[in-house]
Amino acid sequence: MIYLPDGVQDFLPEEYKFKRKIEEKFREVFIKFGYQEIMPPTFEYSDNFSVLFDENNLYRFFDKKGNILALRPDVTTQIARIVSTKLKGSFPLKLCYVANVYRYDDPQVGKMREFTQAGIELIGTNHEESDAEIIAVAIEALKSVGIEDFKVDVGQVEFFKRVVEDLELQNEEINLLREFLQQKNQSSIEEFIKDKGIRGKKAEFLSELPLLFGGEEVLKRAKELYDTPKLGETIDYLERVYKILKDFGMEEYISFDLGMVQNLNYYTGIIFRCFVKGIGYAICTGGRYDGLLGIFGEHIPATGFAISVERSMLALQKQKKDIVDKSWRVLIKYKENLRSNAYKKATLLRDEGKIVEMYSYEKAKHVDENSFDEIIDMGE
Amino acid sequence: MIYLPDGVQDFLPEEYKFKRKIEEKFREVFIKFGYQEIMPPTFEYSDNFSVLFDENNLYRFFDKKGNILALRPDVTTQIARIVSTKLKGSFPLKLCYVANVYRYDDPQVGKMREFTQAGIELIGTNHEESDAEIIAVAIEALKSVGIEDFKVDVGQVEFFKRVVEDLELQNEEINLLREFLQQKNQSSIEEFIKDKGIRGKKAEFLSELPLLFGGEEVLKRAKELYDTPKLGETIDYLERVYKILKDFGMEEYISFDLGMVQNLNYYTGIIFRCFVKGIGYAICTGGRYDGLLGIFGEHIPATGFAISVERSMLALQKQKKDIVDKSWRVLIKYKENLRSNAYKKATLLRDEGKIVEMYSYEKAKHVDENSFDEIIDMGE
Repeated sequence: MIYLPDGVQDFLPEEYKFKRKIEEKFREVFIKFGYQEIMPPTFEYSDNFSVLFDENNLYRFFDKKGNILALRPDVTTQIARIVSTKLKGSFPLKLCYVANVYRYDDPQVGKMREFTQAGIELIGTNHEESDAEIIAVAIEALKSVGIEDFKVDVGQVEFFKRVVEDLELQNEEINLLREFLQQKNQSSIEEFIKDKGIRGKKAEFLSELPLLFGGEEVLKRAKELYDTPKLGETIDYLERVYKILKDFGMEEYISFDLGMVQNLNYYTGIIFRCFVKGIGYAICTGGRYDGLLGIFGEHIPATGFAISVERSMLALQKQKKDIVDKSWRVLIKYKENLRSNAYKKATLLRDEGKIVEMYSYEKAKHVDENSFDEIIDMGE
Repeated sequence: MIYLPDGVQDFLPEEYKFKRKIEEKFREVFIKFGYQEIMPPTFEYSDNFSVLFDENNLYRFFDKKGNILALRPDVTTQIARIVSTKLKGSFPLKLCYVANVYRYDDPQVGKMREFTQAGIELIGTNHEESDAEIIAVAIEALKSVGIEDFKVDVGQVEFFKRVVEDLELQNEEINLLREFLQQKNQSSIEEFIKDKGIRGKKAEFLSELPLLFGGEEVLKRAKELYDTPKLGETIDYLERVYKILKDFGMEEYISFDLGMVQNLNYYTGIIFRCFVKGIGYAICTGGRYDGLLGIFGEHIPATGFAISVERSMLALQKQKKDIVDKSWRVLIKYKENLRSNAYKKATLLRDEGKIVEMYSYEKAKHVDENSFDEIIDMGE
C-alpha cells in the first residue's frame, strides 16, 4: 500500500520545517505569558471523550482486555481530566499544548482528520481579566507568526441559551434554530418565529440576532432590543472584557457576534473565533468552559482556546509569508587521510550553527554540489 | 474514567519541559549534520507495518470503509514508504524525525506502549562512510544532552545469517538459536551444537560467538576461528567503519558484539546498540536496512537509528543531570487604571525572554507570589 488513508498526510521536509516554525512561535508566546506545556497521551478511554464528542467523530479501537480506547479529538478534555485528578490545588493554573488531534467526521483544511492544535487553558478563575487574557494571547500568537488581517469575533453562549430558555422549545427545535443562526440564515429564523408563534420583543430580538455583529455598538443595540437583567449581565461582562482589551491596545482586532453559536458543547460563557481575511473558516476558537472539569469531579472554572496550526500555515501561504530562516549549508570534501581534520572542521562549523555534510573525495562525486551554499575542499 | 489505559501517560509540565529539551537537542544535532525533519501520519494502512511487525504488536482499528489502519510501531517503515513514493531521485537523502510510536506487545521503560523516538535515516548509499556517520551522529546526539558513560556495541546481522546458512537448519531452529545468542546463553548453544551434530570449525565458532564482544581484537579472533571469504568481507567492512570512527576521535565509545542479533527483522548489514552504564536496555538501536525500501517498490540501500527519548530521560535522571534552563518569572500587579502601562511593561519584559504574568490588585490576591522570581507593583 503506497497510498495513505483518507484524512492523514506526510509532512515533507520543507513543509514540516514551516509547520514546526509556526508551532515554536506559538509555544514561545504561550510560555512567555506563563503557560506551561503538558502532553497527554494520544489515546485514552473512549468514555472520557464521548461525554462531549459524538462517537461517530472518534477513532475508536479495543485493547486486548476489551476496553474501548479512542484517539483524542481534542486536548482540552484531557487537560480537564489531568487538572481534576493530578494538578488540583494551585490556582490559577496556566497550561498549554501543541498536539495532534483526530476527528473522523469533522475533517479540517484539506479534509484532514489528523491535525495539529496549539492551545492554552487558564484554569481556576472566572472573571473578565482571564477571558481578556486568553483573547490577548490568541492575538499575540497570531501576530507572532506574522498573520495579518485577522479579526476576533466575540460572542457568548449564554446569549442564545437565555433567549431560548424563555421560549419553551423542544431540543430538536433548539438545534434547528442554532443551525439557522450559525448560517446567519435570517429568513429561516423569521419563518421559525412565525411557526412557533413567538411575538413581541423576543421575536424582534431573535430575528435581529444574526445581524448583531460588528463593533461595540451591537452591545448597546442588544440591550435596546431585549432588556432583561440576565441579558444585561451578559452584556456588561462582554463590555468589561472589551475595556481590558482596549487597555491592551487590541480594539482593532475585536468585533462582536452575538448570534455566534459553537459546535463543541462544553462552552458556558464567552466564546470567540479568529478569522483571517480570505479564509472562510476560523483559525482559532476558544471560550469559557466552567462545567467541563466538573465531569471529572472538580467544579473549577476555566477558559482557553486552540489555534489550528494547519490553518495558520494556509493563512501565511496565502500572504506569501516565508517565516523559515534560511540555513547555511556547507559541504566538506576531503582526502581520506585528512578525515580527522575534516571532522574537526565540521564540528567547528556546526558549533557556529551551520549545517555541514562531509564526504570523502570518492563519495562526494555522487553528491549534488549545487545544493550547498559553501564547499570546503580539504585536499593535500 | 479518571485513570489511563495501560501503557500511556500524561507528561506534566516539569517532566515535559525536560523531555522537550532533550528532543530539541537531538533535533539540533541531526539538523547540523544535514538531516531534514519530516513527519508521517500517526496511523496508516496496517499492511504497511504488518510486513515487518507482528500484528499482535500493532494497535489496529477500522475506518468506516472497512480498511484496517494501525498506529505506527516505528517511523523507519514510514520513511521507506515516503522515499520510495515521493522523494526518489536525489540521493544521498538525509531525513530525521522526533515522533511517538505505538507497540502493544513490546512495551518500553515503565511498560510504555506509546513512546517517543528521535531518529535519522541516510538513504541511497551503501558504503562504510555512511554507516560510520550514522554511528557518529548517535554518539554526538547522546553527548549533546549530557549522557555519560555510554558505549556503542557494533555487530552485523550478516554474521549470524552467514553462519547458519551453511548449517541446514529449520526456521524454528534458527529462531531458537537467535534467542540463545540474544541471551548470550552459551550452555544452551553448546547443547544445540551437540544436538544438531555440528562439528569442526563451525561448531567452535558458533560456541564462541556469544563471547565475541569487546574491542577491535574480537574481529581478529573471529577471523582466526572461522576464516571464510564471506565472513572475511563482513569483518573487513566492520574494520573500515571502525577506522573512520577512530578518525572522528570516537574509538572510546565503540565496542564490538559479533553475536548481536536484532528484534526488528529489516536489518541487512551493520547493526548497533547504545547502552548507558547502569541501564539494562539499549537507549539507541540502529543499523543498515538495504531491503526495506524494496518492499515499497524502490531498491535503495539505507542506514539509520532511533534513540528512545524516554530512556534518555531516565539516563539523565540517574545521572541527576538537570539540563532545563531556569526561566525568570515576573509577576506584575497593577491598579486597574494603569492596566495599559502594565501591559506595555509586560510586553517589554517578554521580549527580553522573561515569563510575565499580570493581574489587577484585586485578582492578584489569589496568586501565589512565592512562585515568582520578581514582583513588579504598579500602583499610583
